[in-house]
Amino acid sequence: MNGPVLALAGGVGGAKLALGLSHVLPPQQLVVIANTGDDDVFHGLNVSPDLDTLMYTLAGLANPATGWGVAGDTFGVLEMLKRYGADSWFGLGDRDLATHIERTRLLREGRTLSEVTHYLCGKLAVKPTLAPMSNDPVRTLVETDQGTLAFQDYFVKYRCEPSIRSVRFEGASQAHASPTFQQALNSAEAVVYCPSNPVVSIGPILALPGVREMLKAFRGPRIAVSPIVGEQALRGPAAKMLLELGEEVSCVGVARRLAGICDVLVVDRQDANRVADVRATGVDAVVLDTIMKTDADKKRLAQEVLQIVQRRLAA
Amino acid sequence: MNGPVLALAGGVGGAKLALGLSHVLPPQQLVVIANTGDDDVFHGLNVSPDLDTLMYTLAGLANPATGWGVAGDTFGVLEMLKRYGADSWFGLGDRDLATHIERTRLLREGRTLSEVTHYLCGKLAVKPTLAPMSNDPVRTLVETDQGTLAFQDYFVKYRCEPSIRSVRFEGASQAHASPTFQQALNSAEAVVYCPSNPVVSIGPILALPGVREMLKAFRGPRIAVSPIVGEQALRGPAAKMLLELGEEVSCVGVARRLAGICDVLVVDRQDANRVADVRATGVDAVVLDTIMKTDADKKRLAQEVLQIVQRRLAA
Repeated sequence: MNGPVLALAGGVGGAKLALGLSHVLPPQQLVVIANTGDDDVFHGLNVSPDLDTLMYTLAGLANPATGWGVAGDTFGVLEMLKRYGADSWFGLGDRDLATHIERTRLLREGRTLSEVTHYLCGKLAVKPTLAPMSNDPVRTLVETDQGTLAFQDYFVKYRCEPSIRSVRFEGASQAHASPTFQQALNSAEAVVYCPSNPVVSIGPILALPGVREMLKAFRGPRIAVSPIVGEQALRGPAAKMLLELGEEVSCVGVARRLAGICDVLVVDRQDANRVADVRATGVDAVVLDTIMKTDADKKRLAQEVLQIVQRRLAA
Repeated sequence: MNGPVLALAGGVGGAKLALGLSHVLPPQQLVVIANTGDDDVFHGLNVSPDLDTLMYTLAGLANPATGWGVAGDTFGVLEMLKRYGADSWFGLGDRDLATHIERTRLLREGRTLSEVTHYLCGKLAVKPTLAPMSNDPVRTLVETDQGTLAFQDYFVKYRCEPSIRSVRFEGASQAHASPTFQQALNSAEAVVYCPSNPVVSIGPILALPGVREMLKAFRGPRIAVSPIVGEQALRGPAAKMLLELGEEVSCVGVARRLAGICDVLVVDRQDANRVADVRATGVDAVVLDTIMKTDADKKRLAQEVLQIVQRRLAA
C-alpha cells in the first residue's frame, strides 16, 4: 500500500481494532480518526472520551478492566470534588484528569484539538496518527422520553435507560473535518470503519459536511467490522438505540447504515446466515471471528481486515 | 467583645495561630483574611496557596507533615502531567487540585474569589469566616539577582535561593480590599497580625489602597505575633528576605514594619532581651512562648493573645 489506512472509530470497541491495526501496520500507514460528538465539559475541563480511549489504548495505558481510563488510576480528585458538591457521576481518574487539565489549558491558549491531540500523543509515545474528526464543537444530543440529553448524560448519568426518539449532532453542519481527517480522506489507500456504535460514534463523523460524499467517492476499499453480533451490541447501547430508532438490530441494520460508503462488512461467524441479507443492501459481507478479547484477537482481526483490503486492491 | 477579631495571615505559620483562634473564639467572632499575593496559575488552574492553607487548616484537613496541602493526598495528576512535559515543581496533590479545579470553574463562571472561598469553606465545614484580602489580582514580584520572579517561582521553584533586591505587589494599587475585609476593618473589635512573613504575607495586605490607613485609624487593640524568633524565621524565607532588604532580622525588625498600625508585638521568650528595642519603635512588647508545635500550643497562644486584647479593651 502507498497511502495510509484511515480508521474511523468511537471508544472502547473501536479502539480494540485500532490497536490491532497499530500492531500490523507501520505507524505512518495508520490514521485513526476519533468521534468527538461525545466531548463534554466536566468541572470546567474539556473531556474527549473517545479520543482519550483511543489515545490511552494506543499508548498501552488503557485500563484493561474497563477499556477506558488509565490503568491503575486513582480517584483522589473526584473524591474531593464530591465534598465540594460537584457532580461525580462521570468517573474521572486522577491520571485521566491530567489529560483534561492539559488539554483545557492548551485549548484556552488557542491551540486546536488536533494540535493538542498531536502533542499529547507525542508525549505518550503513540506511534500512529490519532486525530479528532473535527476541531469544531459537535455535540451529540439524544432526544428521549425524558427530554433532550447530551450524550454523556444519556450514556453515563442515565445509563442509557431513557428511550430514545432521535439523535442529532448539534454544530455538525457548521463544523469542518479536521485537517488530518481531510488529508487522510484524500490520500488514504483504504477506509476501515471500526466496530463502533453506528449511531453515536460513526454517525457524528458522517454528519460532518462533505465527509459522506468523500467516503462515497472514495476509490480504495472501504471495510467495516460490524459492532452488532446476533442481536446484541458487543458493548454499549448500540442495540438498544437501533431498536428504539426503528432500525434492524443486526449486522444487516449496520450494513443499511453504511450502504453507499462501504464495500465490505465483516460479520461475525454467528451471523453467517445473514450474509445474503447484508449483500442485499449493496454491501458485500465477509464472515470472520470478530469478538476481540485478547490482544492476539485484535491483531488477528486487523490482519484479516487488511487481507480483505489487499485482495480488493489486487482485484 | 461585640465585633469579631480580624486576623491577617499568610500560609502555614499564620494558619497555626488562626487555628488556635478558631478554637477559642465563637465562629462569628473570627474573620481571617488571607494574603493572595502568592496566587498563581498552574496548569491553567487558579491556585491560592495561602487561602488554601488556611482553609485546609481550619477544616482540619491540612497535611500535618507540611502544613500545606491535604492530609493523605495522592499525586496521580501530577505524575501524569509530568508525562505531558508540564512543570511539576509545584507539588499539587490530587485532592488539592480538586480545590483549584472547582475554584477555576466558579471564577470562570463570574464568581468572585470571596464568593468561591465562602462556597468552598461551607462545603468543608470551615466555621469562622475566611476571605481573600482582595477579589482583584495582586501579584507579588520579587526582584532578584536572577531577574524578576513571581513569588511561587522564587519560593518553590528556586527555593528562595536568588538574592532579593526588592519586592513589589503588582496590581495592588488598583485592587480593592475584599468586601469581607472592608467590613471587618470597620466592625472588628481587634486586629491580630498572625506570625506570617512580614514582607510577602502581611506586605501585600498592607499594600491594598486604604488598608494601612484604616489599620492606622483602627480604634481597637492591634496585636501582632512576631514570625521572627531570635534571628530566624520560624519557617519560610522571612529572615533571608529581611536581611537582603537591609532590614534587621529580629522581632525589632518586625516591629519597625508594623509601627503605627500595631499596638503590641508578642515576642518569644528567647527575645525577652529585645523588649526595650521593640518599645523604642513605638510598639509595645509582650513576652510569650510563641512556638506552636501542637494544637494545644496554638490554642494557648491564641488565648494569651486574646487576653492581651481583653486587657487593652478594659484599660
